[in-house]
Amino acid sequence: MRLLGIDPGFDRNGFGVVEDNGGKLTHIAHGVLQTSKDDSFMTRLRQVRDNVASLIDQYKPDCVAVEQLFFQTNAKTAMNVAMARGVILLAIADAGIKLVEPTPNQVKSGTTGQGNADKKQVQEMVKRLLKLDAIPKPDDAADALAVAIVGCTLSNSVH
Amino acid sequence: MRLLGIDPGFDRNGFGVVEDNGGKLTHIAHGVLQTSKDDSFMTRLRQVRDNVASLIDQYKPDCVAVEQLFFQTNAKTAMNVAMARGVILLAIADAGIKLVEPTPNQVKSGTTGQGNADKKQVQEMVKRLLKLDAIPKPDDAADALAVAIVGCTLSNSVH
Repeated sequence: MRLLGIDPGFDRNGFGVVEDNGGKLTHIAHGVLQTSKDDSFMTRLRQVRDNVASLIDQYKPDCVAVEQLFFQTNAKTAMNVAMARGVILLAIADAGIKLVEPTPNQVKSGTTGQGNADKKQVQEMVKRLLKLDAIPKPDDAADALAVAIVGCTLSNSVH
Repeated sequence: MRLLGIDPGFDRNGFGVVEDNGGKLTHIAHGVLQTSKDDSFMTRLRQVRDNVASLIDQYKPDCVAVEQLFFQTNAKTAMNVAMARGVILLAIADAGIKLVEPTPNQVKSGTTGQGNADKKQVQEMVKRLLKLDAIPKPDDAADALAVAIVGCTLSNSVH
């Protein structure tokens, strides 16, 4: 089963692609897709949708996991990220692909066994679970791999 | 100039269409487009996009005004509305139509002259400005007409 994980944002979206063969996890790809600050908000919103549609087109995931958001202190940033998240979910719905939405706590406990684990511990487990030589960079791509891995597990346990 | 105003939401979107001929305003249409609570979140997000795309297709506005959001006390509702708003802006961007985003205070002061006007005062001014026999119903459709009218003014003053 092919899993795509997304750490959602407006300025940048981390993504991670993992193959799950009956519990055996293989790293396929990870990275970050950015929108340009020089473009208008409307253009950037379209870029977010196009970026996600391209990821789906390229990696043909069976399931997409998008981390849930919690409100931040900066209301304007939170609003932009929430609008971007709406557009990301729309791109997934348009592609007709199954969506799972793990919470940050589920991602932490799903990888490390501890809901209060820090970013570094999660990334270390991503490295181990995918048998990588080093922690994937940048941080939001590593997070997206964790989202994909936990999405796999949740997704498998659902049906 | 044809103006479309939207009072954005997830469960329901109020809309209002106004023709502005050199400052002479004419009421064209108003109403509410709903999404069904029986459908999945993903389906409803697509419905929001499709509803806005249909409005644009039907009324061919030169400019769309979407009221800005402020965070509400209910974080989950605010998040859903923000995601829906992202999808609404995407539909407008995809149609290549000009967007204006008046704040609630701009809508109040733009119609009544007072930033602290209440809903009823705004609706009374919508009725007067559009020479209607009664206040348009329901509330979010009347609000959307106010958003369209103020969007007209802002839009005209921009260029």
